[in-house]
Amino acid sequence: MRPSGRTASQIRPVTITRHYTCHAEGSVLIEFGNTKVLCNASVTEGVPRFMKGQGKGWVTAEYSMLPRATHTRSEREAARGKQGGRTLEIQRLIARSLRAAVDLKMLGENTIVVDCDVIQADGGTRTASITGACVALADALTWMRAKGIIKTNPIKHMIAALSVGIYKGNAIADLEYIEDSAAETDMNIVMTDTGKLIEVQGTAEAEPFSFEELQDMLELAKHGLRELFDEQKLALN
Amino acid sequence: MRPSGRTASQIRPVTITRHYTCHAEGSVLIEFGNTKVLCNASVTEGVPRFMKGQGKGWVTAEYSMLPRATHTRSEREAARGKQGGRTLEIQRLIARSLRAAVDLKMLGENTIVVDCDVIQADGGTRTASITGACVALADALTWMRAKGIIKTNPIKHMIAALSVGIYKGNAIADLEYIEDSAAETDMNIVMTDTGKLIEVQGTAEAEPFSFEELQDMLELAKHGLRELFDEQKLALN
Amino acid sequence: MRPSGRTASQIRPVTITRHYTCHAEGSVLIEFGNTKVLCNASVTEGVPRFMKGQGKGWVTAEYSMLPRATHTRSEREAARGKQGGRTLEIQRLIARSLRAAVDLKMLGENTIVVDCDVIQADGGTRTASITGACVALADALTWMRAKGIIKTNPIKHMIAALSVGIYKGNAIADLEYIEDSAAETDMNIVMTDTGKLIEVQGTAEAEPFSFEELQDMLELAKHGLRELFDEQKLALN
Amino acid sequence: MRPSGRTASQIRPVTITRHYTCHAEGSVLIEFGNTKVLCNASVTEGVPRFMKGQGKGWVTAEYSMLPRATHTRSEREAARGKQGGRTLEIQRLIARSLRAAVDLKMLGENTIVVDCDVIQADGGTRTASITGACVALADALTWMRAKGIIKTNPIKHMIAALSVGIYKGNAIADLEYIEDSAAETDMNIVMTDTGKLIEVQGTAEAEPFSFEELQDMLELAKHGLRELFDEQKLALN
Amino acid sequence: MRPSGRTASQIRPVTITRHYTCHAEGSVLIEFGNTKVLCNASVTEGVPRFMKGQGKGWVTAEYSMLPRATHTRSEREAARGKQGGRTLEIQRLIARSLRAAVDLKMLGENTIVVDCDVIQADGGTRTASITGACVALADALTWMRAKGIIKTNPIKHMIAALSVGIYKGNAIADLEYIEDSAAETDMNIVMTDTGKLIEVQGTAEAEPFSFEELQDMLELAKHGLRELFDEQKLALN
Amino acid sequence: MRPSGRTASQIRPVTITRHYTCHAEGSVLIEFGNTKVLCNASVTEGVPRFMKGQGKGWVTAEYSMLPRATHTRSEREAARGKQGGRTLEIQRLIARSLRAAVDLKMLGENTIVVDCDVIQADGGTRTASITGACVALADALTWMRAKGIIKTNPIKHMIAALSVGIYKGNAIADLEYIEDSAAETDMNIVMTDTGKLIEVQGTAEAEPFSFEELQDMLELAKHGLRELFDEQKLALN
Repeated sequence: MRPSGRTASQIRPVTITRHYTCHAEGSVLIEFGNTKVLCNASVTEGVPRFMKGQGKGWVTAEYSMLPRATHTRSEREAARGKQGGRTLEIQRLIARSLRAAVDLKMLGENTIVVDCDVIQADGGTRTASITGACVALADALTWMRAKGIIKTNPIKHMIAALSVGIYKGNAIADLEYIEDSAAETDMNIVMTDTGKLIEVQGTAEAEPFSFEELQDMLELAKHGLRELFDEQKLALN
Repeated sequence: MRPSGRTASQIRPVTITRHYTCHAEGSVLIEFGNTKVLCNASVTEGVPRFMKGQGKGWVTAEYSMLPRATHTRSEREAARGKQGGRTLEIQRLIARSLRAAVDLKMLGENTIVVDCDVIQADGGTRTASITGACVALADALTWMRAKGIIKTNPIKHMIAALSVGIYKGNAIADLEYIEDSAAETDMNIVMTDTGKLIEVQGTAEAEPFSFEELQDMLELAKHGLRELFDEQKLALN
Repeated sequence: MRPSGRTASQIRPVTITRHYTCHAEGSVLIEFGNTKVLCNASVTEGVPRFMKGQGKGWVTAEYSMLPRATHTRSEREAARGKQGGRTLEIQRLIARSLRAAVDLKMLGENTIVVDCDVIQADGGTRTASITGACVALADALTWMRAKGIIKTNPIKHMIAALSVGIYKGNAIADLEYIEDSAAETDMNIVMTDTGKLIEVQGTAEAEPFSFEELQDMLELAKHGLRELFDEQKLALN
Repeated sequence: MRPSGRTASQIRPVTITRHYTCHAEGSVLIEFGNTKVLCNASVTEGVPRFMKGQGKGWVTAEYSMLPRATHTRSEREAARGKQGGRTLEIQRLIARSLRAAVDLKMLGENTIVVDCDVIQADGGTRTASITGACVALADALTWMRAKGIIKTNPIKHMIAALSVGIYKGNAIADLEYIEDSAAETDMNIVMTDTGKLIEVQGTAEAEPFSFEELQDMLELAKHGLRELFDEQKLALN
Repeated sequence: MRPSGRTASQIRPVTITRHYTCHAEGSVLIEFGNTKVLCNASVTEGVPRFMKGQGKGWVTAEYSMLPRATHTRSEREAARGKQGGRTLEIQRLIARSLRAAVDLKMLGENTIVVDCDVIQADGGTRTASITGACVALADALTWMRAKGIIKTNPIKHMIAALSVGIYKGNAIADLEYIEDSAAETDMNIVMTDTGKLIEVQGTAEAEPFSFEELQDMLELAKHGLRELFDEQKLALN
Repeated sequence: MRPSGRTASQIRPVTITRHYTCHAEGSVLIEFGNTKVLCNASVTEGVPRFMKGQGKGWVTAEYSMLPRATHTRSEREAARGKQGGRTLEIQRLIARSLRAAVDLKMLGENTIVVDCDVIQADGGTRTASITGACVALADALTWMRAKGIIKTNPIKHMIAALSVGIYKGNAIADLEYIEDSAAETDMNIVMTDTGKLIEVQGTAEAEPFSFEELQDMLELAKHGLRELFDEQKLALN
């Protein structure tokens, strides 16, 4: 049994609040249960130096946890003077995933940065970030179209992400912190709403996992992600 | 006339939401109009090295703006690898002000860090931070008393802060961004609820100011701060 | 057809040279074709602060590419003043994988750091690093046993890693640089010699991939990894 | 009574030595009693990036204490790898104050940096810095005029700064270290020689201060600053 | 007697392997006994900003020790976030020495960076680096001529470097680690193959040295360096 | 002929002012012509971690140039966030030289840091630093003896340093900036007052130098250093 009483495949209640802050071109507060992430998409003219002159745009992301998003306070990365390895790993994942959702050629030489700041953490901050960031990105692209900066919508498909894992020997979906910290295996799946895979990252925490367990987790992810795509659609309509 | 139609002495609507996040010992979202700051107070055992063995506690603060709290995105300080001068100046002000509110001897060898993270900025982020942080601090101290960590409440007085300025030749209270960026003089006052001063920081932006203008601003601050203390009391009861 | 003329499942020639340098307790030069990584395992007494007093040991890893390991020179990370996101991501992967191979309780309060320095890169530097690091780790543990620092060998199973990918629509194993840079999907699998999974990391580069393609890649990895385990055994005997 | 036997309003002997070093366009050693600060103004063509194309100049400042300017040695900031919060706060104050003294439009696209390096500290290093820096700035502007870089003198008014405070219950002017470290309130006032205010920064150290005490301190500052302006004039003639 | 049984003037066996890695324009593994340094020369178009527009090229060098090149592991400089003083001192020496070997005007506006990475250290890493780097530089210049980037060879003379020292009261050549760590005086000489001096750096470690001892060391260096020039010539033919 | 009209062997006027600042245990302003360096020696109890428990003391040094010590302003190292290679190289040289002057065992577990801050530069800042630092060190040791911290004076011999070089084909002593920047060879010699060598560092700037030129420079240094030892003695009596 799961601590929350959820079934193995049951994801937490999802809330997507658009236009959460007033300055960003796309601003989404996404909640996966007690996990709350603010995703702000910012549009700027021009592209980073390594992309110049290719007639293409750029999409990137940054991720951070507020120091007291967690049970105990973590040191502020700005005060430490550098971003930790976990932070960099997660923001690289978010950025790669978002770029897979967009046709960069249709974006023109413009950049969209999506900032994912975790207000409160209870497991699944990276999957909530990706799922919310895609909505913020969609809003920013709509804004660009309204402003005449782009002619057509460069979104190829929506993307969303879900964590799955092996917990007490069983595959479960959308782990909260208490499950995550005790799981034998932890896995994050990023998928398109057309049912294809963007990222698959599975890690044995306590025990190596079998190919069969991998299949079970993939199956759970596929179903849970359908629900996330429904939530995204609902929010965007 | 002020852009918002407010009178010279009129402060913006203030909202103080306690228990905003679930992990921090004190967690307050404070809003001064469109300015929104999350103030999380974290209690930890022990004190920094330079305070050890004195039988006293320590209170400090950190301040940050989310990259897209403002009209245009600012670079993330964690990514740049250092906190800017403005950030350090503000967090030093918040920390000093909070320490003036607490009897450190009564705190025991414990540390409270108050993180002030600006979710949305529209002028007055440092004054909102101080005003909200004092409520979060009060909640954290109540929590410590409930846990038996301290016997009596070490708060000496509540503190709050308000910005005042000279705008188009007149003294006004609680400047929003559009006023702040055009003001001749910008001033921040931190006061105790017993009517004494903790900090007075006035800066000529475009024009030097006269001693008379200084008096006008101080007068406005004194009155506006009364309202802030009322809001704090209301929130805490 | 693959540029090298290899079949889809064919991995490159693997060479494992033990005792490559004279100071390290375990020192292995591993070659996957033109990719050459020096893996040095260093044993030290004691554990990092966060592990103290648990009676357990610690295994970690660092990864770096020599500036001219690649076609064009990359800036030296020590000169830039920080390790890049890619570096941190890879060394976290190597370290996690190695820890999954060892019973930390049997290690006593000792630390093993495995440095993986890429002398020459031609794709697959992280998989070569893991495969070679496990041999260096085994040698360091043998050294510890010879010195009487540990009584029994704490290795639970050998681990190895292989890259697989979708290249021109087909699943292939052990991508070299020219394939890697053109692949639709890139995936790294870390496995135990008992046939269980440690890490699965698949990334869509140009195109999302299907669940079927994922299965094809997993299948190729399983077979290629058998060969790597054979090479490790050969080297260790 | 004050430790030095000075009256409450009595400032320390002030010495201003121009042309102290031979390379800088303006070079002033200023002494407030035992506090000695070297203020070097450097003129360079061009302005920082954020000022380009506005036809205006830029004035900025940097502040530092030699490691052994104080009773005990402080760590060298260059060795620590970053400037502390106090340093940044002070150099921002000096720079803002100097900019308030100059018409940036009349400066053309040129930059003046004033370096304030504290050779010996005994309280009041920031006020001595500002007072000396304004003389160095005046010399640098004279040099620019002599070289034909500017046509007319862009100085709007001289500025000077003085510390005041509440010490053993009384307002006093120009605190030396022994007073400063024991003061209830510490305040720095930057004024123009036309009697207007540039900066007012008052901080309660041990005790909040009343509005009446604030008035007393302002009054002392006004008088002490007259003397500083006399010293500046004397030095410049 | 020397620990290795060598005579006072006898240098260790020298091995120079060209084309050691496949990407660099010049790639040399040089061995002085157990000291092994990989020297990779990289050619790039353009020069650093401070050299622009002078019609001249630039030659520079970077030096690093792999963390476990030595008896005990040293912290990785990239992880520490800065290069140590010893590293910077050595790479400045290598770079200055190499620039003395080349006519920068004949190089055109091109840059050559020589990376010297110490694979295994047993004393003399800086002298081996310089001696090997000059061969790598020569190969890179040959490559440039073959590509038509330069018309004539800008090498003025070959350079090589040797350590000498006072060990147990006698001058000896080419110190290995065990001698170096016990030597009274340590000296490094960089010379041209035309018998002139580029650098002379002698340091008293335990005891000041006399002018006579200096002469003895210079004499030993002169002879040992002849052998190094012979090895370079042999390798290049 | 030298620009200043000096003869080849003639050093600049030397001024040594003791007790230049009031806080340091040893404080010396040394002037070699227009080169002015403030050398402050600070005594602290205890030694750095790597020296603990050996019953020995430690002597070290830091070096810095004020930003406008030179003809044009250099960036402040504290603002850049790191010390440059030249700075580190010089401070390592000063520190090594000072340690050669002192019997660390007789110092007890105490540390002396000598800060050499260049107020004005005109060539020879490192040699002036060493020569002045040794006097500041002597004063600090006298202070320690007066305080009863040490029983006997741990100075083994005084040290001083002089620059020599090849300028327009001739060996000259004590180069000023205009000579230094045009010299073919630049050399710094650190010697004891007993006539032995501590450091010899010669660098070919424009042209390699012959063994004969090296002898000429050494000879000049030997004579010039005698004069420096006389100045030190004069200052200390």
